[in-house]
Amino acid sequence: MTATLWTNARIVTADGTTTPSAPGALELLTDGGKIVALGADLPRQGAKIVDCEGRLMTPAPIDCHTHLVFGGDRAFEFEQRLDGVAYEEIARAGGGIKASMRATRAMDVDQLVTASLPRLDHLLAEGVSTVEIKSGYGLSVEAELHMLRAARAMETQRNVRIRKTWLAAHALPPEYAGRAVDYIHEVAIAGLNAGHAEGLIDAVDSFCEGIAFSTEELAPLYARAKALGLDVKIHSEQLSHAGGTAFAARHGALSADHLEYATAEDAALMAASGTVAVLLPGAFYTLRETVLPPVEAFRAAGVPMALSTDCNPGTSPLTSILMTMNMGATLFRLTVSECLKAVTCNAAQALGLSNETGRIAPGLSADLALWDVESPAQLVARIGFNPLHSRVFRGAECPQ
Amino acid sequence: MTATLWTNARIVTADGTTTPSAPGALELLTDGGKIVALGADLPRQGAKIVDCEGRLMTPAPIDCHTHLVFGGDRAFEFEQRLDGVAYEEIARAGGGIKASMRATRAMDVDQLVTASLPRLDHLLAEGVSTVEIKSGYGLSVEAELHMLRAARAMETQRNVRIRKTWLAAHALPPEYAGRAVDYIHEVAIAGLNAGHAEGLIDAVDSFCEGIAFSTEELAPLYARAKALGLDVKIHSEQLSHAGGTAFAARHGALSADHLEYATAEDAALMAASGTVAVLLPGAFYTLRETVLPPVEAFRAAGVPMALSTDCNPGTSPLTSILMTMNMGATLFRLTVSECLKAVTCNAAQALGLSNETGRIAPGLSADLALWDVESPAQLVARIGFNPLHSRVFRGAECPQ
Ligand SMILES: [Zn+2]
Ligand SMILES: [Zn+2]
Repeated sequence: MTATLWTNARIVTADGTTTPSAPGALELLTDGGKIVALGADLPRQGAKIVDCEGRLMTPAPIDCHTHLVFGGDRAFEFEQRLDGVAYEEIARAGGGIKASMRATRAMDVDQLVTASLPRLDHLLAEGVSTVEIKSGYGLSVEAELHMLRAARAMETQRNVRIRKTWLAAHALPPEYAGRAVDYIHEVAIAGLNAGHAEGLIDAVDSFCEGIAFSTEELAPLYARAKALGLDVKIHSEQLSHAGGTAFAARHGALSADHLEYATAEDAALMAASGTVAVLLPGAFYTLRETVLPPVEAFRAAGVPMALSTDCNPGTSPLTSILMTMNMGATLFRLTVSECLKAVTCNAAQALGLSNETGRIAPGLSADLALWDVESPAQLVARIGFNPLHSRVFRGAECPQ
Repeated sequence: MTATLWTNARIVTADGTTTPSAPGALELLTDGGKIVALGADLPRQGAKIVDCEGRLMTPAPIDCHTHLVFGGDRAFEFEQRLDGVAYEEIARAGGGIKASMRATRAMDVDQLVTASLPRLDHLLAEGVSTVEIKSGYGLSVEAELHMLRAARAMETQRNVRIRKTWLAAHALPPEYAGRAVDYIHEVAIAGLNAGHAEGLIDAVDSFCEGIAFSTEELAPLYARAKALGLDVKIHSEQLSHAGGTAFAARHGALSADHLEYATAEDAALMAASGTVAVLLPGAFYTLRETVLPPVEAFRAAGVPMALSTDCNPGTSPLTSILMTMNMGATLFRLTVSECLKAVTCNAAQALGLSNETGRIAPGLSADLALWDVESPAQLVARIGFNPLHSRVFRGAECPQ
């Protein structure tokens, strides 16, 4: 790969600032898939020149919290709920997360890849170049591993970086009803050991909630993750204040996610542990939640905020990082600058990838998005609109 | 054009029902741009056969309320509001609708077409084949006519049916401050006469609200519209109960639009006058409105409900009819069936086009959408996802 000089762009580095440079005031030199230099009037010799024609250049967006590998869909439940069928009735009829579990268990790795690639492709079409994918619909050792094998296979089929997160502690499958402690040991921890041995797991996650797992139940899982040297994260304070955020901060979690019911005290603990607040407005919107995450407390404590689709078949069937930014602004009142950092540098931090992607800075991977707009506000303000001109992954323009 | 036989589709006629037929149970014969027959085992002789491979076929969606012709954008204001700048301060600095007015007045017809076609194209990419476009950012006779001339020109450049609505009574321009009555006569009515003579106007609309026009101010305009034999509609009860709905119903309006603050009494009047309730969840969402339109009252009174993008640069920068359906379901609790009717047969009724498009029935224009899903619920449940396989306008598949 020869060196490439990107000229005449309005560059948002997300490296401290999200204010675009004047067109052409900064140039970018990439080589070997990396950003080599950023500055004015860079030397041209030998480099291929790409004229960006005044377009906005940002770091390629990162979707740092998804459940996009799964079988089936739950559109029928969506319809039933609007028709007035009670959630309990849907659950009794085998709906909810258990419906996704059955459909996911029924698929092999190839089938999971085929079912899930269109969702990944929707993200890539908006410039996304790093996607986190969680297990959590298999709920058996083998089915959970299948999900992460599918995620790994998808990375080989597209120009994308995929981070794989072990989320066996997502829900209790029917065969373990009333035996959460057994499930954590026999599935979540046993599978973690197997998946780690297979090199399948980048981080460990859980759903800490009254309807899922308590911090006491999760403690042995997080202890094992730390013993293996793995990063941890958590779904916490989504539906109530169950204490998962403080628990995760004690484990130095990369991120705590959802957080509608988090407190200023949680924010202070997150700031101290360097934990990113991953806000998920698609779930907030779909569930018609009215309690807002404590954005002001995160700002005051200096907790970095990320935004992500939470792409999943039930509570956030969302595959647009642009709509996620719009929801972050409209629903959570994040500023435009905060929205942009939330899907670039802060999302990278939530994945432990700060030194690899998410900013336009020398030494990082050349993961870029070029947009047919002039300002970040024009990316965030609109709904149902995709102004992506091109996506650059590891220095190479991706076919669309 | 030869006859075409569409086979092996799951057909949603929206002609009474939105339940899809079993794949292949119904076939569709089109000829000369029209739907000729719908039934089982239609005669094949001479017809070109299109195998729909089990896809869902619906009437092509209709966007029955848009302001998509305008100059400039207001993303900077969106950013300012998030940064905490008060609405009044933005307005004092020349923002809001006046900013769109200045940018629109500065453009000629060709420039307006160039600026607006990408917004139209986003709608067409989701299967939309009929779009209503309003004037209302020119606010002078000539600039208002320019907007509708641009709408007319766009119809010649795309495979789409465009309905042009005269909305000079959208806001009072600065030069008429304090002189609403003069504005109605000198611009809204004078321009209506001129535009009608030019064949530019399909219907007359207004914004009836404390910050816009009162029913008393609007009365001469609606009288003139009726004298010209034109259909009327109204923006009413969006921010408060200003009485526009009852006023419009007295004029036999095709539709009353927004309606968050409408009452059961308004619904009864609309039912009696055959007025469609056009709900605009994009504006509800963007303005973070909390008062819901009285959906239950519309159901009880038998008022047909439509959904539309309200595409505009400020309060609903939305160009997705699919996201509009999702918002109709998620925010307004319309059922899946109601959402589908809301963008097909009921949207056609809101435009006075019930006998031309919006249903799959013999005699109507063959305006169809083929989707890579099996059920209407799969169109409505997801966010940021476009499963359109192809769009058929007047019997011909449109290139994408
Ligand atoms: Zn999640
Ligand atoms: Zn409007």
